[in-house]
Amino acid sequence: MRIGVLTGGGDCPGLNAVIRAVVRKGVGVYGYEFVGFRDGWKGPLEGMTQELGIAEVRGILPRGGTILGSSRTNPFKIDGGVDRIRENLHSLGVDALVAIGGEDTLGVATKLHELGVNVVGVPKTIDNDLNATDYTFGFDTAVNIAMEAIDRLHTTAESHHRALIVEVMGRHAGWIALHAGLAGGANVILIPEQRFSIERVCAYVESRFESHYAPIIVIAEGAMPLEGEMSTLDKGVDAFGHARLGGIGDWLASEIEHRTGKEARTTVLGHIQRGGTPTAFDRVLATRFGLHAIDAVNAGDFGKMVALRSTDIVTVPLADATTVLKTVPPEFYSEAEVFFG
Amino acid sequence: MRIGVLTGGGDCPGLNAVIRAVVRKGVGVYGYEFVGFRDGWKGPLEGMTQELGIAEVRGILPRGGTILGSSRTNPFKIDGGVDRIRENLHSLGVDALVAIGGEDTLGVATKLHELGVNVVGVPKTIDNDLNATDYTFGFDTAVNIAMEAIDRLHTTAESHHRALIVEVMGRHAGWIALHAGLAGGANVILIPEQRFSIERVCAYVESRFESHYAPIIVIAEGAMPLEGEMSTLDKGVDAFGHARLGGIGDWLASEIEHRTGKEARTTVLGHIQRGGTPTAFDRVLATRFGLHAIDAVNAGDFGKMVALRSTDIVTVPLADATTVLKTVPPEFYSEAEVFFG
Amino acid sequence: MRIGVLTGGGDCPGLNAVIRAVVRKGVGVYGYEFVGFRDGWKGPLEGMTQELGIAEVRGILPRGGTILGSSRTNPFKIDGGVDRIRENLHSLGVDALVAIGGEDTLGVATKLHELGVNVVGVPKTIDNDLNATDYTFGFDTAVNIAMEAIDRLHTTAESHHRALIVEVMGRHAGWIALHAGLAGGANVILIPEQRFSIERVCAYVESRFESHYAPIIVIAEGAMPLEGEMSTLDKGVDAFGHARLGGIGDWLASEIEHRTGKEARTTVLGHIQRGGTPTAFDRVLATRFGLHAIDAVNAGDFGKMVALRSTDIVTVPLADATTVLKTVPPEFYSEAEVFFG
Amino acid sequence: MRIGVLTGGGDCPGLNAVIRAVVRKGVGVYGYEFVGFRDGWKGPLEGMTQELGIAEVRGILPRGGTILGSSRTNPFKIDGGVDRIRENLHSLGVDALVAIGGEDTLGVATKLHELGVNVVGVPKTIDNDLNATDYTFGFDTAVNIAMEAIDRLHTTAESHHRALIVEVMGRHAGWIALHAGLAGGANVILIPEQRFSIERVCAYVESRFESHYAPIIVIAEGAMPLEGEMSTLDKGVDAFGHARLGGIGDWLASEIEHRTGKEARTTVLGHIQRGGTPTAFDRVLATRFGLHAIDAVNAGDFGKMVALRSTDIVTVPLADATTVLKTVPPEFYSEAEVFFG
Repeated sequence: MRIGVLTGGGDCPGLNAVIRAVVRKGVGVYGYEFVGFRDGWKGPLEGMTQELGIAEVRGILPRGGTILGSSRTNPFKIDGGVDRIRENLHSLGVDALVAIGGEDTLGVATKLHELGVNVVGVPKTIDNDLNATDYTFGFDTAVNIAMEAIDRLHTTAESHHRALIVEVMGRHAGWIALHAGLAGGANVILIPEQRFSIERVCAYVESRFESHYAPIIVIAEGAMPLEGEMSTLDKGVDAFGHARLGGIGDWLASEIEHRTGKEARTTVLGHIQRGGTPTAFDRVLATRFGLHAIDAVNAGDFGKMVALRSTDIVTVPLADATTVLKTVPPEFYSEAEVFFG
Repeated sequence: MRIGVLTGGGDCPGLNAVIRAVVRKGVGVYGYEFVGFRDGWKGPLEGMTQELGIAEVRGILPRGGTILGSSRTNPFKIDGGVDRIRENLHSLGVDALVAIGGEDTLGVATKLHELGVNVVGVPKTIDNDLNATDYTFGFDTAVNIAMEAIDRLHTTAESHHRALIVEVMGRHAGWIALHAGLAGGANVILIPEQRFSIERVCAYVESRFESHYAPIIVIAEGAMPLEGEMSTLDKGVDAFGHARLGGIGDWLASEIEHRTGKEARTTVLGHIQRGGTPTAFDRVLATRFGLHAIDAVNAGDFGKMVALRSTDIVTVPLADATTVLKTVPPEFYSEAEVFFG
Repeated sequence: MRIGVLTGGGDCPGLNAVIRAVVRKGVGVYGYEFVGFRDGWKGPLEGMTQELGIAEVRGILPRGGTILGSSRTNPFKIDGGVDRIRENLHSLGVDALVAIGGEDTLGVATKLHELGVNVVGVPKTIDNDLNATDYTFGFDTAVNIAMEAIDRLHTTAESHHRALIVEVMGRHAGWIALHAGLAGGANVILIPEQRFSIERVCAYVESRFESHYAPIIVIAEGAMPLEGEMSTLDKGVDAFGHARLGGIGDWLASEIEHRTGKEARTTVLGHIQRGGTPTAFDRVLATRFGLHAIDAVNAGDFGKMVALRSTDIVTVPLADATTVLKTVPPEFYSEAEVFFG
Repeated sequence: MRIGVLTGGGDCPGLNAVIRAVVRKGVGVYGYEFVGFRDGWKGPLEGMTQELGIAEVRGILPRGGTILGSSRTNPFKIDGGVDRIRENLHSLGVDALVAIGGEDTLGVATKLHELGVNVVGVPKTIDNDLNATDYTFGFDTAVNIAMEAIDRLHTTAESHHRALIVEVMGRHAGWIALHAGLAGGANVILIPEQRFSIERVCAYVESRFESHYAPIIVIAEGAMPLEGEMSTLDKGVDAFGHARLGGIGDWLASEIEHRTGKEARTTVLGHIQRGGTPTAFDRVLATRFGLHAIDAVNAGDFGKMVALRSTDIVTVPLADATTVLKTVPPEFYSEAEVFFG
C-alpha cells in the first residue's frame, strides 16, 4: 500500500510528531510506502510530492512546524480541483491519505471521502475549539508559552505601576486565554465568548492598584467590549482619539490609560505561540494520534478521524471535525472569575 | 466555618496551586476561615499551624514545593494519634479538612473520615499511578523535565559515540519513563511493569550504533532485568565485578559497556523532577482540583476526593485513592515499542 | 554603620540578586545594618522605608523585579527635595547609600555625592548602553527571551509563507536587537544607530522567499527608516493609508505587505523582556556587583560605581555612568550583516 | 581557496554556530570553498569528508552537537599519522584548516602548524579552563542548565527535610560548579581546586536544617575531601561500609547521611550539561569566534586561535591554548563563601 500524508492550515507544534508516528508505524509495522504531499491540499492538487520514509522523519519529533509545508488551498474552490486530485492520487498509486489539519483541511477530507477517496483525518487546532476531541496537540504548547509570558510580567507588575496586557490567540474561542490566564494567575481574562465591560475591567485595575499590585490582563485577540463601549473601536481611534492602535490589546491599553490615568503596556505574542518545540503533552498526544491514524488506515476505517477521549484515542466520523465549535462554557469561565480583581 | 488544609508525602509541583485555589474560593466565595497545618498529618497531630489567608497565598501559584511543608507522619502508627488529632481539630475549631496527598496521606484521610472527621481529599502522585483519576498534577511537569533532558542528550548522541541513559522516577509504575521516552524519542524505554532483557537492550544499542546514531535509553528507577540476568545486580557488583554503582541506571551502563564494548553514561535526574515551577497543565489541573475540593466542602460532600475524568472534575470516594495502583497497561507499552531500536 | 539601599528606573532582572549580595555580605562580613528605601529616590525623599536584613533577602535571588519597588522620581526636580533626603538620611541614621539604577538614578547619586552624601552606585540598564562597563545585568536575560521568540518563529517561517517581525527593546541603542538577532539567526536586524532602507529590507524579504524560506526580521523599537521613506510614518498611517498601527514593527509589517504582496506578522515582546527569572550570567554579574559595591562602602570608596571589565569587577567614577551612551559601533553591525538576506 | 573544518573532543553547545559562521562568511565574503572533515582529526587522517556549504549550515545555529561529528583521535600517536594528514590535505586541495576543539585538538593543531600546515584554531572547553580567553562557548549553557536544576531543588528543599546534592562537570576546574552555585544560591560549593572538609560541610548542613531549610550542595565531579577524610573513598565503600556508590556526589550523600542522620539525595546531571540548544551568550560568542577565525585565515594569520578579551575577539598564539589551565582563583572562591551555610 502507498499512503499519502499532508498537513494543512495554520502552524501548530506537534505536526511533525504526527508525521513521524504515521511513518514509523506505517513502515515498521505495516510495511507501507509513503508519499509526502507538499503544502496541504495544494500537494495532491498539483502533484507536488516529497520523499517520506524513515530517514526523512528522523529527528523531527521535537521540531515545530511541518516538514511537509502547509497552505490553505481548497480544491473544492478550484475548477476541476477534485478531479485533478483523484487523477494525481491514481497516477502516484496512492491508496489512502492521512490528512492532518483543522476545520478547513478536514472539511475537504470529509467531502473527498464522500466522493470515494480513502481518507483518515488527524485533527489540528491550536485553539482547542474542536468538540469531537478532549484536546488537540499544539494547544498545550501555546498555553505554556503564554503562561511563561505572564509569569515574566508578574515580577514587573510587582515592582512598577503599570497595567500589563497580554494579547493571545483565539479569534472565536477563548481556551488559550482562559488556560494561560488561570495558569499564569492573571487578574482578568477576556475571551470572545463573553463581551467584556471596559468599566468593570477598569474597576479591577483600580482595585488591584489599591492593594499595591499592578494588574495583569489576558485578552484573546477576538475578545470584544460591550456594544455600548465600542464607539472608539468602531471609529478606528483609541480612547484619546488618536489613530487606532494595532489589535484589541492596544485598544484596551488606551482605554485603561484614559479612564484610570495609569499607564498600560501591551505584549502581543503573535506567531511565537505557534512555533517552536512542542511540550511533552503535545508530543505524546500527536504521536498517539499518528499511531492510531495509521492503525485506522490499516483497519480500512476511512472517513474517520482520531480523537482523544479521557486517556484513550478513539476514531470518530470525520464530519464531527467541522460541525460544532467548542467554545468556553460559561460555567468554566465562572470558575476562573474567582481569581479576578 | 473554619477549614484546615494540609499537604503530605513527597514533593509535587502544583501543591501551592491547590492551596491557593482552595483559599481564594473558600474566602472569596464561601466566606470561610482557614487554618494551615504544618508538615502533613504532623500538623493536626501536634497542633502545628500557620496562618492561611488571601495574603499568604499571594504569588504562590507558580512556585513548586508547598508553603505548608510536608511529612510522612501517619497518626495511626502513633499511640493515641487519632485522638490527639480530633482534640486539636476541636480546640482549633476546625470543621473540615482538605487533605492533599498520595496513597498514604489519603489513606489516613479515609480512616479519619470513617471515624467522623469531615475530610475532602485532593489526590497527589507525581507518578500518575492512581486509578481514580485520568491525571494527577505534577506528573506533566516531571515528564517535561525528563523530556528536556532527553532532548539535550540527542545532540550529544548524534555527535559522539556513547550510549546515554536517563534514570527517571517510577518505583512501581513507569508512566514518567513511558511519556518522557515517547516525548523525547528515546530508543528504548524500560519500566517496572515489564522486566527487561539486557540482551535485547544491547541488541538495540548495537543496531543503533550501526546506523551511526548513539542510543538513548530511559529507565525508570524501579525497572528490573529478567531474573536470569540479575546475578551481578544481586551480588551488589557491576558487570565488571566492581563494587556496585548507584542505581539501576548505573548498573545498566556497566552492563552495556561490558557486553557491547561501547561507552555508556548515566544521568540521574532525581529530585529535580519534583521541583520548580509547574507546567500550565499542572497549574490548571491543580487549580481546578482546589476549586472543586472547596466546593465539595461547601456541599458537605465529605469522604470524597476530586478527580479528573476527561475534561471534567468529579468527586469519587476517598477510598478509591488507595485501592488499585494504575500501572502502564501492556498495550500502551506496545504502542511505544514501535519506536524502539 | 547603617546602609540604605534603593533601586530606581525601569525593571531589570537581577536587581534582587544585587540587593541580596549587598545585604548578605554587609551583614555577614561587615556587620552592617540595612534600611530598604521604597521606590527609588522617592524612598529617601519621603522617608518610605522597609526592613532589609538576612530574612528579607532569602529566596529572592532567582526572582525578577525588585523587592524595594522602583520609580523615576528625581529629587532635584522637586523643591527642597535634596534637603529632605539629607534630613531623612540623618534622622534614620543612614551613613551611606547603595543606589542601583540607570542613567537617571545614578545621575541623582552623582550630584548627591558632590553634595556630601556617601553613595556607591550599581549600574543598571537592560539596554546595555553604558560605556563604563562591559556588560550590565538584565541584558543577557532580555537577549535570551528575544532569542527564544525568534527560535520559535523559525519553525513557523519554514512551513508557512509570511514575513515575521519581532519588535524588541532599544530606543537609542540596538544591543538587544543585535545580540538576539545574531543568536536567533535573523535575516535582517534593524537598530536605532543606522536608519534602514525599507527598499533594501524588502529586497531581503523577496530573496528569502525565493529560496523558499520566510524571512525573520528583528527590529529595535527605536529603529527608523531613511528620511525619504518616512512619509506614511509621519502622517500616522500605514502603507495602505489606514490609521497607523502600534509601533515601528507594525508599521514595517504594513510596508512589507504593501510593497511585496506577502503577508507579514509582528510580535511585540514588550515588558516580558524585563521580567522573570534572570539568566545565570545576570545572576552572577548582579551578585558580584553587589559584593563589590558593599566592599566599596566598606573601603569608603564613595562617588564610585562598580563595573565589569573583562572578568573583573572594578570601581569607576559615578559620573561615568551618565556621560557617553554606548551604541552599537558600525563595525560590529557589519559583522552581523554577513548573515542578512 | 579550499578550507577544511573539523571539530574535536567532547561535545559543547555552540560548535555548530562556529561552523555556520565560518562557512557563511567564508563563502559569502571571501568566496572560499569548504571541506568538512568527519570526527575530529580522524577526518583528515582517513580522508573522511562531507560536503560543507551554505545549504549544509542552514538551520544549525540553535542546534547542539556538531554536524561534523567528533573524536579524540590524535594523529601524533598513530604511525605515519601526520604524513597521511598532509597527503590527504594535499590531494583534497585543502589550503588551510579551521580546527575547533580543546587542549588536545588544538595541541595537534599547534604541532601541525609547526610542521607547515596552515591552521587557525577556535578554542572549545565547556569547563572554561583556558587561560587565553575570558570565556569559551558552551560554558554559559552548561552553567544555566545546572542553575535551573538547582532552582528546581530549592522548592523541594523548602518543603522537605533532605540535603540535596547536585554533581556537575569539572574534573580539574570548578568554574561550572562555582558559577552555577552562585547563580542558583547553593549553600555550599565544592570544587577541585580546594579539598573540602566533610566535617565543615556537615556543619553547614546542620546549621541550615536548624533554620528550617534543607541545604543544597553543588559539587564538581573532580572535588575531593581532605586527605584525612578519604578512608572510605579509598576503600571503595560509602560511609556505611556498603559497596561504593557512583561518583563523588553519591559518596558525599552517604557521608552526610551517616554523620548527620539526615537523608541526602544526589542528582547527577552528566551529559545533559553538554547538549541541547546553546544560550544567546554562547551563540553570539561562537558566531563571533567563527567570523574572526575565517578572517584570520583570510589574513594568513596562521598558528593562531581566536580568543575573547573583554568584548573584543582577538587572535593569540595557538600554543596558548595548551599551556596553563585556568583554575578558580582562591579569592573568587572566597567571594562565594559569603553565601555558604
